[in-house]
Amino acid sequence: MKVEVINTGSELLLGQVTNTHVGWLGRSLSDLGLRIDRQMTVPDGPAIRQALVEALERADLIVVTGGLGPTSDDITRDVAAELLGRKLVYEPAIMAKIEGYFKRRNIVPAALVKVQAMVPEGALVLSNDFGTAPGLLLERDGKALVLLPGPPRELKPMWENEVLPWLKKRIGLSQGEHQRIWRILGLGESRVQEILEEALKGKGDFEFGYCSRPGEVDFRLITADAGSLKKADLFIRSKLGDSIYAEGDETMEAVVIRAATKRKRTLVTAESCTGGLLGNRLTNVPGSSRVFIGGWIPYSNKLKERQLGIPGGLLKKHGAVSEPVVVAMARNALRLSGADLAVAVSGVAGPEPGTKEKPAGLLWVALATRKSTLALKKNLPTDRETYKYSASQVALDLLRRELNKK
Amino acid sequence: MKVEVINTGSELLLGQVTNTHVGWLGRSLSDLGLRIDRQMTVPDGPAIRQALVEALERADLIVVTGGLGPTSDDITRDVAAELLGRKLVYEPAIMAKIEGYFKRRNIVPAALVKVQAMVPEGALVLSNDFGTAPGLLLERDGKALVLLPGPPRELKPMWENEVLPWLKKRIGLSQGEHQRIWRILGLGESRVQEILEEALKGKGDFEFGYCSRPGEVDFRLITADAGSLKKADLFIRSKLGDSIYAEGDETMEAVVIRAATKRKRTLVTAESCTGGLLGNRLTNVPGSSRVFIGGWIPYSNKLKERQLGIPGGLLKKHGAVSEPVVVAMARNALRLSGADLAVAVSGVAGPEPGTKEKPAGLLWVALATRKSTLALKKNLPTDRETYKYSASQVALDLLRRELNKK
Repeated sequence: MKVEVINTGSELLLGQVTNTHVGWLGRSLSDLGLRIDRQMTVPDGPAIRQALVEALERADLIVVTGGLGPTSDDITRDVAAELLGRKLVYEPAIMAKIEGYFKRRNIVPAALVKVQAMVPEGALVLSNDFGTAPGLLLERDGKALVLLPGPPRELKPMWENEVLPWLKKRIGLSQGEHQRIWRILGLGESRVQEILEEALKGKGDFEFGYCSRPGEVDFRLITADAGSLKKADLFIRSKLGDSIYAEGDETMEAVVIRAATKRKRTLVTAESCTGGLLGNRLTNVPGSSRVFIGGWIPYSNKLKERQLGIPGGLLKKHGAVSEPVVVAMARNALRLSGADLAVAVSGVAGPEPGTKEKPAGLLWVALATRKSTLALKKNLPTDRETYKYSASQVALDLLRRELNKK
Repeated sequence: MKVEVINTGSELLLGQVTNTHVGWLGRSLSDLGLRIDRQMTVPDGPAIRQALVEALERADLIVVTGGLGPTSDDITRDVAAELLGRKLVYEPAIMAKIEGYFKRRNIVPAALVKVQAMVPEGALVLSNDFGTAPGLLLERDGKALVLLPGPPRELKPMWENEVLPWLKKRIGLSQGEHQRIWRILGLGESRVQEILEEALKGKGDFEFGYCSRPGEVDFRLITADAGSLKKADLFIRSKLGDSIYAEGDETMEAVVIRAATKRKRTLVTAESCTGGLLGNRLTNVPGSSRVFIGGWIPYSNKLKERQLGIPGGLLKKHGAVSEPVVVAMARNALRLSGADLAVAVSGVAGPEPGTKEKPAGLLWVALATRKSTLALKKNLPTDRETYKYSASQVALDLLRRELNKK
């Protein structure tokens, strides 16, 4: 089954909004053994029609996102009806549902919303519990066209509750393609290829994939033979060991929360240069409140003293970005909170270049347990947001390694 | 000038990585009055060739990202050379630069990196200061092909330092298209259309665009007449006033940091349900350390007591998600830090449904100044990460409105 995704919306091409649909749909489809063969983004307007005409020639399943809203630039519904030769019909039941949505929020709907109750004849209506525009599923000559609204929180439940069950029935069993991804910290992609690829070529018929991020790489194998994938996993783990921090799309923060929950260890954070990113990542994981008890963001030296009792003399002597200070941050966070593990970060995020001794990119991380404290120095010269991400990744990895200790 | 962007990489279609290139390139191009007419994502392998053949027929400028790395799935360089009929030549100077890159990081390069020193004849080499693969710029028959590496921190400086200057020279003056975006909080897109669109149709020849997020909408006008855009701005501001929190791609956090810097007011945060996101957003803004002095993440009740001195009795009587507790959090954060403004959030992020009195989506926010405290209740039923974002947006907006007071 050939699959194409068309994302509509000038805002995607003008850079107002990041397209997260492709990745999300791609992950969902790959669980069914399907892959997106091509993705296109086109601006609102006539380009939508042209992209649909092309995709209808090549693909069996076409998923279109966006352009179902009430405003003048939303034309997907009209174009799809025209190309498939269907009349648009007004559906009072949909209008009633839209009115209910507004009523629950104490809003008087604009007259324009009525267009969202128009449905191409013969279409399956996908109900929208998080917004007003319903999705639509149209079939013709063995090809299927799925129209979904643009906002992620509207699209996702609709896809999961209505499109996926339909798709599973439609394709029958999985198409027999197996995929596995190992997420590796601390090795570059060419190093990973050198260690793994030649050796794995003898162990099965694999498609190799690499995806590189600062200090990290995801290594991907796709094959039709599930058995060879299992053997490959043993080999890869024997070669890379603890450098593999997760599999598939599991995040570092999810791994940390899972390990802490399993071992019943509570966590606190003390973040200077990451400014709250560490806490934010940990609390993105549902259920994190069982083990993450909280944190400090002592961004200024004043708050380092006031919140965590870091002596002014220590700050003056070594500077905030130093081993003694980051160690004191971690130890005091542990003591003040009563948690089992504390992690602290202090560094120079940039974009100002810093000093010769402490340039932008410098990072000190410390991990404190009831028994010991470990401190680590890193150099991560890059842009501000990448630096913050990499610093949080180093800190989370310290927690992961501690929690994985036998 | 017709512009197309091709993003290569199976990881984008399998959902391992979010494509941030399109938005970033789109913003950069629109500053020159150019627009992306179409964007495609194709998997590694032969699909790259097919996409390039199609784009070369339609577009004048084609930007390709990814596939320049050292591993076996990186074939963009070879395909581009073949399609444009150029031989690949080994460039020792590039290899020397790559070796220097590894040497500075104390890494022995893998033998595979050598392929990155191969250059199609006649290509302009775009030097890479943040990685190993140089970019390439090829011209033929009035069309230009720009090949860039996939990692954002490598692509961005290359684009800004080398491609943009070349492109500016190439297109001469701006193509005369003007764009303006108003970012609006607290109004839905159909409401914004009702208020603005009909009235604006009489004031100029505008292309209208709407981009909707939970509780927010971006309203966009594009026109060839800069004067009518100026008049439109006056009209829009007279209708929407303070609901416009920013323009263009400025973020709420950048607006807050800018206003606080201008008025020399220092900020602190006390975050329960947002878990550090508020601090993270504020510290993403370069220069934020001048006004953001830090924050607390009292995620558990225990830390609400220990960090911020919230009385156990108050927590027991009203619960952590309540007006008295969030007010105490804000006031105590102000007092303990000595800052000018403190903002506090406490809510139920989900995905667990919560209770009938305190369902998932409930949010209490408080803003404390030296003189007064303001508390606000919101209901934001959605997924966990959207909730956290919306909650942080509400909190930042309270800071913005306070900082904008005359």
